[in-house]
Amino acid sequence: MISALGEASADLGAMLDKILPRPDGQIEQPLFEAMRYSTMGEGKRLRPFLVLAASELFRVSRTSALRVAAAIEMVHTYSLIHDDLPAMDNDDLRRGKPSCHKQFGEATAILAGDALLTQAFEVLVDEETHPDPRVCTQLVRAMARAAGPYGMVGGQMIDLAGEGQSLSEAQVTHLHLLKTGRMFAFACEAGAILGKAPTSMRMALRAYAHDMGLAFQIKDDLLDVEASSADLGKTAGKDVEQEKSTFVKLLGLEQAREQAQMLCDQAIDHLGVFDGEGEPLRAVARFVIERQR
Amino acid sequence: MISALGEASADLGAMLDKILPRPDGQIEQPLFEAMRYSTMGEGKRLRPFLVLAASELFRVSRTSALRVAAAIEMVHTYSLIHDDLPAMDNDDLRRGKPSCHKQFGEATAILAGDALLTQAFEVLVDEETHPDPRVCTQLVRAMARAAGPYGMVGGQMIDLAGEGQSLSEAQVTHLHLLKTGRMFAFACEAGAILGKAPTSMRMALRAYAHDMGLAFQIKDDLLDVEASSADLGKTAGKDVEQEKSTFVKLLGLEQAREQAQMLCDQAIDHLGVFDGEGEPLRAVARFVIERQR
Repeated sequence: MISALGEASADLGAMLDKILPRPDGQIEQPLFEAMRYSTMGEGKRLRPFLVLAASELFRVSRTSALRVAAAIEMVHTYSLIHDDLPAMDNDDLRRGKPSCHKQFGEATAILAGDALLTQAFEVLVDEETHPDPRVCTQLVRAMARAAGPYGMVGGQMIDLAGEGQSLSEAQVTHLHLLKTGRMFAFACEAGAILGKAPTSMRMALRAYAHDMGLAFQIKDDLLDVEASSADLGKTAGKDVEQEKSTFVKLLGLEQAREQAQMLCDQAIDHLGVFDGEGEPLRAVARFVIERQR
Repeated sequence: MISALGEASADLGAMLDKILPRPDGQIEQPLFEAMRYSTMGEGKRLRPFLVLAASELFRVSRTSALRVAAAIEMVHTYSLIHDDLPAMDNDDLRRGKPSCHKQFGEATAILAGDALLTQAFEVLVDEETHPDPRVCTQLVRAMARAAGPYGMVGGQMIDLAGEGQSLSEAQVTHLHLLKTGRMFAFACEAGAILGKAPTSMRMALRAYAHDMGLAFQIKDDLLDVEASSADLGKTAGKDVEQEKSTFVKLLGLEQAREQAQMLCDQAIDHLGVFDGEGEPLRAVARFVIERQR
């Protein structure tokens, strides 16, 4: 699994390098540097991998899949840059190096996030991504919904608003469905959109992504308690410090582990519709709960 | 002119009210409130007016024009929210009331800006905006370019990086072409895209918008020196305080006024291609240099 992620990551890196603005002595150079610094880092790049794995199911061209994967990684990176800001989670460390605002200052970090989000939409409607404009508009609609006020950003707001309060298990599940689940779902669905797949398969991929995404989040909560900052490449123990309502707090360690395993199995079950195809997606589901960072 | 702006603004307000998320006791309610608070304020709403005025030239449906106008106002508002943040221009006053982060806190303001930008793209690809997906993809591409790293956000970066340095007149012109000119140009061009207008007309509208936009900025620099904060609805005298390179500083008051007038005349000349039509756009050009706020 790690080697498959690594291979996809190399191709994605080349695509991002092609897409992102190139610093070249312009006055606005720090903006372009910050965009690259955060996007080209050593992330797990799970979302792009999902796009590629889902796209394979429908024989989508590698270029189309890589371009959409790059757009999703740009949106994910923008969310991390803004999330790390002092006014938000105030995190100095990300992907094993100083977070964007520590390296470039807050103003540049805010703008780098804004620029990544904006340019990601441009990537989706480029003819190189897909020649059929109907496919492009579906991609834009699905990404905007996954990332917007009813998706990722809404989830971040719930996360912030919920600090210091006790949220119920249902509320925490809803929070993570929005904050990370919707973008995982879009990553998988993008493959189906590019491949003009039937609705049943599109829905199966969404269901897979929701369960896998929730398992991912429970594992994140477990790692925040169990791992060190050096292992994680980001600050450990933040959840307790910020009095966040986590699955570990709600369920306890043991039950949280069981829940993650159950969701992983359930995610894999949804892939039944692909008749034995989709092994990389099954591997992702297993990886998500076995990973140590 | 003021009454025409007012009328368009009322229709736009109704459209924004329909589009923006409705606060309804959800945990994420502060996000939805902040999005509405800043977007529904008493701005000049010049960019939406340009969309409507340009759309009229090509007999575009009022609904299409209003939806694109709303998307542009959402993007403009997001840029103001982020621009006002303490790490950026640190402005407490906007459109005559406390700026978004003063009212809702910094974290919510950052997220409200992010959500407005994201949702604006969703608006552009909605079938209610235009049934032809080719038109929608053109709108997305043009808006992303106008707002992204080579457009508005790039301009903001130059503005920040240039503080405390002396920029040349050419550099300041380039800064404003990016920071405000590109979005003005998109506002006008959107009418042409919606109306499937010939390239010559699309180009004439872009040229009009560039000159008018520059005149707008010179007038902004003049007002920063000449007007009070109460008149402006935002903090006056900020440019001098922040040691910004303004047209007034570069050209002096008298020559700055002449330059604005010359650009206004030139902007109006570009509308010759419409054979006497386009009076609202001529009125905008005149308004831009005559306004007192």
